[in-house]
Amino acid sequence: MQKARKAQESLTVMTEMVFPNDTNTLGNLMGGNLMRMMDIAGAIAAQKHCNRIVVTASVDNVSFKEAIPLGSVVTLQSKVTRAFNSSLEVGIDVWAENIPAGTKIYTNKAFMTFVAVDQTGRPIEVPPVEPETAEEKELYAGALRRRQLRLVLAGRMKPEEAQELKQIFKLDA
Amino acid sequence: MQKARKAQESLTVMTEMVFPNDTNTLGNLMGGNLMRMMDIAGAIAAQKHCNRIVVTASVDNVSFKEAIPLGSVVTLQSKVTRAFNSSLEVGIDVWAENIPAGTKIYTNKAFMTFVAVDQTGRPIEVPPVEPETAEEKELYAGALRRRQLRLVLAGRMKPEEAQELKQIFKLDA
Amino acid sequence: MQKARKAQESLTVMTEMVFPNDTNTLGNLMGGNLMRMMDIAGAIAAQKHCNRIVVTASVDNVSFKEAIPLGSVVTLQSKVTRAFNSSLEVGIDVWAENIPAGTKIYTNKAFMTFVAVDQTGRPIEVPPVEPETAEEKELYAGALRRRQLRLVLAGRMKPEEAQELKQIFKLDA
Amino acid sequence: MQKARKAQESLTVMTEMVFPNDTNTLGNLMGGNLMRMMDIAGAIAAQKHCNRIVVTASVDNVSFKEAIPLGSVVTLQSKVTRAFNSSLEVGIDVWAENIPAGTKIYTNKAFMTFVAVDQTGRPIEVPPVEPETAEEKELYAGALRRRQLRLVLAGRMKPEEAQELKQIFKLDA
Amino acid sequence: MQKARKAQESLTVMTEMVFPNDTNTLGNLMGGNLMRMMDIAGAIAAQKHCNRIVVTASVDNVSFKEAIPLGSVVTLQSKVTRAFNSSLEVGIDVWAENIPAGTKIYTNKAFMTFVAVDQTGRPIEVPPVEPETAEEKELYAGALRRRQLRLVLAGRMKPEEAQELKQIFKLDA
Amino acid sequence: MQKARKAQESLTVMTEMVFPNDTNTLGNLMGGNLMRMMDIAGAIAAQKHCNRIVVTASVDNVSFKEAIPLGSVVTLQSKVTRAFNSSLEVGIDVWAENIPAGTKIYTNKAFMTFVAVDQTGRPIEVPPVEPETAEEKELYAGALRRRQLRLVLAGRMKPEEAQELKQIFKLDA
Repeated sequence: MQKARKAQESLTVMTEMVFPNDTNTLGNLMGGNLMRMMDIAGAIAAQKHCNRIVVTASVDNVSFKEAIPLGSVVTLQSKVTRAFNSSLEVGIDVWAENIPAGTKIYTNKAFMTFVAVDQTGRPIEVPPVEPETAEEKELYAGALRRRQLRLVLAGRMKPEEAQELKQIFKLDA
Repeated sequence: MQKARKAQESLTVMTEMVFPNDTNTLGNLMGGNLMRMMDIAGAIAAQKHCNRIVVTASVDNVSFKEAIPLGSVVTLQSKVTRAFNSSLEVGIDVWAENIPAGTKIYTNKAFMTFVAVDQTGRPIEVPPVEPETAEEKELYAGALRRRQLRLVLAGRMKPEEAQELKQIFKLDA
Repeated sequence: MQKARKAQESLTVMTEMVFPNDTNTLGNLMGGNLMRMMDIAGAIAAQKHCNRIVVTASVDNVSFKEAIPLGSVVTLQSKVTRAFNSSLEVGIDVWAENIPAGTKIYTNKAFMTFVAVDQTGRPIEVPPVEPETAEEKELYAGALRRRQLRLVLAGRMKPEEAQELKQIFKLDA
Repeated sequence: MQKARKAQESLTVMTEMVFPNDTNTLGNLMGGNLMRMMDIAGAIAAQKHCNRIVVTASVDNVSFKEAIPLGSVVTLQSKVTRAFNSSLEVGIDVWAENIPAGTKIYTNKAFMTFVAVDQTGRPIEVPPVEPETAEEKELYAGALRRRQLRLVLAGRMKPEEAQELKQIFKLDA
Repeated sequence: MQKARKAQESLTVMTEMVFPNDTNTLGNLMGGNLMRMMDIAGAIAAQKHCNRIVVTASVDNVSFKEAIPLGSVVTLQSKVTRAFNSSLEVGIDVWAENIPAGTKIYTNKAFMTFVAVDQTGRPIEVPPVEPETAEEKELYAGALRRRQLRLVLAGRMKPEEAQELKQIFKLDA
Repeated sequence: MQKARKAQESLTVMTEMVFPNDTNTLGNLMGGNLMRMMDIAGAIAAQKHCNRIVVTASVDNVSFKEAIPLGSVVTLQSKVTRAFNSSLEVGIDVWAENIPAGTKIYTNKAFMTFVAVDQTGRPIEVPPVEPETAEEKELYAGALRRRQLRLVLAGRMKPEEAQELKQIFKLDA
């Protein structure tokens, strides 16, 4: 097994301006374009953790609550939360800032998974993640539940076997 | 309440070629670019159903199982599954075709929700969906469970109140 | 000679949204961008017919009668009409839809030709087209006249030898 | 009637490099992307002639004989040939240069028409064109024939009334 | 005069991946695309300092010493160094990282100036910059010399009046 | 040493329209996008001179004095001024034209240097430049001073050794 690497080492900050072609007819950033930014921010964090090419494996449920108008500055912060063999879960936080208006809002939280691959595209083992802060530890613990949810939703795990998942839904209470 | 519209009327078929700038260093379509295509295909189906501007509200868990190489033809098929007041769930199916190789594979199934808005961006009521085929009826029924899962994941519904959701996880068995 | 394939098998439906960067200073889709979409839609239909890489050989006269505003949904439908050795004629129909306004207009009809090539770019024979419907048969028949017009316009056929072409101009009447 | 302007005053030279995203799977410029460049080059020449916003009205038959590889330098030269009320015919010549290989080939000749419009998009009269050189005079004369061909192809002129067109096909011989 | 703001408050980190369309025929990031990234990174830092729309006024001499290959991760870090009435100097540092190769190199240092404007595009006064660290203080001091160099190069200051500039060239030694 | 080539042979004219995605929130061309155009125009002129692939080595101080609104026509004219072993200095002039308004202004003058490389990216000698007109000769002479300024600014030449540079600053007066 490879030597663990600290979650913090994968931290990636990405700042983007919302350009005209990124917007819908109301002049706000389209959801699909934000997802494209998240994918890039997530992939870079995953690459930093394992020093490998990575490919996107999945994105968890994302909700878009806030309109982000043309000219806004979007900040994405991504960090690896936990590794499973050749796959990595990355947490991505998004803020949108309307600088002339002096407002900055937290708009999204997403979890994506990436798979590390070699030059031929075959999966390859990655180092474990070492969480340090309380928040990193909580994300590390929660990664197990989120992984079970993904497997159940993808039909690759029976719900009754998803022990950790029950904690999300507090179903054993 | 507005007059129901048939699910079939919103059917949208989108065909895209994978261009160099859409690919990662392995020469395959990046996940974020596929999500961007899904968002557009979904938004058009939602618009067709309600004849309104729509904005992306959420995307459910999507997994990316297949590498889609440069030059592939990607076909997206989107159709409204169910409406809830001002929001619409859209199902999106994705196929990737390598025409010279003669292969066509089913790569993704995604559910996205959109909110219909007026010109000022305020939510506005949409017509109900009338499912006709067996598949449309199943998607219509399942929309309720998926909606509860979204609300639970967004912290807007208590898991113990998510009656329909239990069916996904067969938790009442 | 290869086995004929039905025209219908090449049918390709492409749906595009008009984004800000596609528009001119009046906020309408630029003609050149529509031609770019037509080229892609046509190439995909041609590829489907022959399972080969294809390159654009020509586009016939196209006229742009309607302004297509920002945010419109453009639908392109392409289908192979006839094959000639290594080249394929494709018919492309275009509609523009302003969904909030509830309008959908037929905006363009274009014929393009593509040449099937192998990996080194050399032309390669394609299967004949088998038209089935009355419309497909009419397009199949007309392809001969349109081909003669192309050859005459390109200076590769003498007008007096263009027997079929006379029917377009009803010159033998 | 407005004062005539010399054809030469509208001359526009456009130089473009072929970037990765402009190419097909063989690594050559896609036909649709070249048409997009032609549309821009033509529109600028038309604008220069009439000092108005112009919209694309039509493109005549264009054939693509030469493969233009990635990294090539494409030169487009456009000049107004003749004006008809609010419409302008523009001739566009295209060369492709592979600089490291030391080759420059003439690849395309196209005629496009543009309509001058006011800020509301309504057609507006343009100055006549004054051809000076022998080539400009020939293009000026030929514009009448090409216009008749466009009108016949668009079903807006009966072939038997297209007096000038007969000269193209030498049909009165 | 407005209240000074700390240099550190304008710090902006931008992370970009090098995509195929950003590269030249050798597969490396084109200089012009890196300048485009620098302009955006610089403009965001300038905006953060003054909470205004800003426009690019100038870029100082930039040299491109390192080839940055396709797939690299480019990190730009920008921070306001000093303000002069309505204009702001921003320092931008660039690193390029080839993650699978495990290399990260410092590639560029650039200084750009931006002017804060109101909604009509008229220049508007900005807060002074308060440098805190030794590096920020050095950049703050140097800004005066760099400003004189810009003015001399633009022909707006006589070289003999550029007192500070002499320090760059150690001409008074 | 290679045979000299005339400056005029490298002349490149590039015409670009300002599209929505090129603009900032005031609707004017962003500085970084103009720099990207300059880089392409400069690289083509450099390539024409030496028939080689070239890479960007540096850009001198550029100032952006004029707002260039959406829909403007930008004309760039580039020409090699002088060669030094494997590097080439190119002068780039930029005009912006608002055609409906009938205005054309000179907006920028920039000097960029490029290095000619072989297919492996190694620098390779280029032909000397032969200036013909008075303007070309002046640019040829000035290239030496500008080169010294670049070397001093890059810390690769001591200011006291920059003999030619003194002429810019009239420091020996």
